[in-house]
Amino acid sequence: MGEPAGQASADPAARAGDLSDATLAGDRRALARLLTAVENRGAVAEEALRRLYPLGGRAHLVGITGPPGAGKSTLVAALIGELRRVGRSVAVVAVDPSSPITGGALLGDRVRMQAYAGDRDVFIRSMAARGHAGGLASTSGAAAAVLDAAGFDIVLLETVGTGQSEVEVAAAADTTVVIEAPEMGDEVQAIKAGLLEVADIVVVNKGDKPGAQRTAAQLRAMLVAVPRAGARGAAVDAESPRPKQPEVLLTTASTGDGVPELLAALDRHRGTADGGRERARRARAEALVRSILADRLRALLDDPAREAATEQAIALVADHALDPYAAADRLLASLGLGRL
Amino acid sequence: MGEPAGQASADPAARAGDLSDATLAGDRRALARLLTAVENRGAVAEEALRRLYPLGGRAHLVGITGPPGAGKSTLVAALIGELRRVGRSVAVVAVDPSSPITGGALLGDRVRMQAYAGDRDVFIRSMAARGHAGGLASTSGAAAAVLDAAGFDIVLLETVGTGQSEVEVAAAADTTVVIEAPEMGDEVQAIKAGLLEVADIVVVNKGDKPGAQRTAAQLRAMLVAVPRAGARGAAVDAESPRPKQPEVLLTTASTGDGVPELLAALDRHRGTADGGRERARRARAEALVRSILADRLRALLDDPAREAATEQAIALVADHALDPYAAADRLLASLGLGRL
Repeated sequence: MGEPAGQASADPAARAGDLSDATLAGDRRALARLLTAVENRGAVAEEALRRLYPLGGRAHLVGITGPPGAGKSTLVAALIGELRRVGRSVAVVAVDPSSPITGGALLGDRVRMQAYAGDRDVFIRSMAARGHAGGLASTSGAAAAVLDAAGFDIVLLETVGTGQSEVEVAAAADTTVVIEAPEMGDEVQAIKAGLLEVADIVVVNKGDKPGAQRTAAQLRAMLVAVPRAGARGAAVDAESPRPKQPEVLLTTASTGDGVPELLAALDRHRGTADGGRERARRARAEALVRSILADRLRALLDDPAREAATEQAIALVADHALDPYAAADRLLASLGLGRL
Repeated sequence: MGEPAGQASADPAARAGDLSDATLAGDRRALARLLTAVENRGAVAEEALRRLYPLGGRAHLVGITGPPGAGKSTLVAALIGELRRVGRSVAVVAVDPSSPITGGALLGDRVRMQAYAGDRDVFIRSMAARGHAGGLASTSGAAAAVLDAAGFDIVLLETVGTGQSEVEVAAAADTTVVIEAPEMGDEVQAIKAGLLEVADIVVVNKGDKPGAQRTAAQLRAMLVAVPRAGARGAAVDAESPRPKQPEVLLTTASTGDGVPELLAALDRHRGTADGGRERARRARAEALVRSILADRLRALLDDPAREAATEQAIALVADHALDPYAAADRLLASLGLGRL
């Protein structure tokens, strides 16, 4: 994607090494290229993650999600401003749902980056919501791991909170912020109830609009009734301590009102012992490992030696001549794994 | 979910047999229970699908998606009315994104079903957007296979077209209808561009509103520029014939205007030789088989004999003491699959 062919065709391990070293040395252009490799899920990404992953684990991963129109981008911009004011570095991964296939408009990045041109401690990157199922969660997880290793204090994962994958991405963060705007439509109300389950902090943005206080009160009332997602997106685990009720804050992103309080709430949540952070780390690790295992299994089945058998099994299922379980069993048997 | 414990604890194979037989005999209550089993992805669902899957392949699967507020539910209701008027049976699977965790509000079903109480040829079912990544696509695919085997002429898969998973569900149908409303906000505009890539038919609903004709003209102009997703959600395959440009229709779901024309367009698309249908069938079969393979792999790794090793590998990744590729390789080696 926009890279010279000569570089892209270099030995993946060498290229991964170069990009990783440059990234660790603070080269933002190398970091951007590395994230493109992560999006493309190839050998360069694998080699780079093998090197960089063990260097991470220090960044605070914050998921920011909410329905369209709640003002996520404006709030993220305000939060960047506040973080810079207190001297912290920040990277943003914005999951762009606009195109499931071609990758969609990444123009927003350039516009947003312009405000921080020359500031090495702000990095903004969109990732398209493309690829196979589950790809979004593992791609953004891998991107967060790279940004973590690159030394950013805080990594913001910004998603539109309307689809399952997008919510999962935000919910896999250490701290999940759900943004709501006052007075939303009916369908958005239903989405809201689902989002509240993953929230550690709820922000009513556009706090200067009429109805903001009432919306905040309504949300506090809803939060009492909503079951809490202990493992952040995973099913609630009965053995684990019940995470505490999320705080509800008011912000006006356009003026910056309430943004220092939001940062304080983020820091407070990070410091709490509700187990959320450990569980979020584990959930992210599991998502990464399982996604790699799925890739490996796919590679095994698409191996030239087995591709014809895989294709034939799928074609039989497409014709309803074979049920999908029988097809799966056949393919597993061909890998020597037998029936379970 | 709402089933007597006694029945749920019966032998899965026997229960699957009973439910399948009753479903094929036209028992809608058995069908509803079978779909609950499919949602829960257990042994009953597996046994039932092994029996029912080979009986399907006749229904026309139609995906209906669009941004919140475009009037999907009203249009689906109008389409049901039109289908019944011409004597066809119809099942609706509505993917409900309102709750990624607890399943959310399925109340809509009851309200919608009331209009067809006593009509065996209309069946409406919500499925919650829960479960692991990719689960949504395979669960709705399995549900569609059951409804197909149950003999419905047309199966409508209704999703909110804002998240990756939800769009994939609709895009996996034989024919994908994207609904738009006149005059949407900016963020919704961006979503729109992505949705157009998967559309076989584009419907501008609320056709009586000012701006509907202009929206239709704008969409026709956009469609010329948008790349077409030949495999309906999969990457465009250079070897395949380029599917033709989608039709753009106007409907007013609340009055029924344009709905007979929509049904005619659905029938026309089904009859075309653009290869879409065969490819959609293949894509659905592949999604089902791969999802089962992923379940099998998960079961292998979570097997009591290997669970401790799996947990330990994930814990090391969570602590950044091991990179996720090394962890995946370790787990594959424990299955005897070795490094690729």
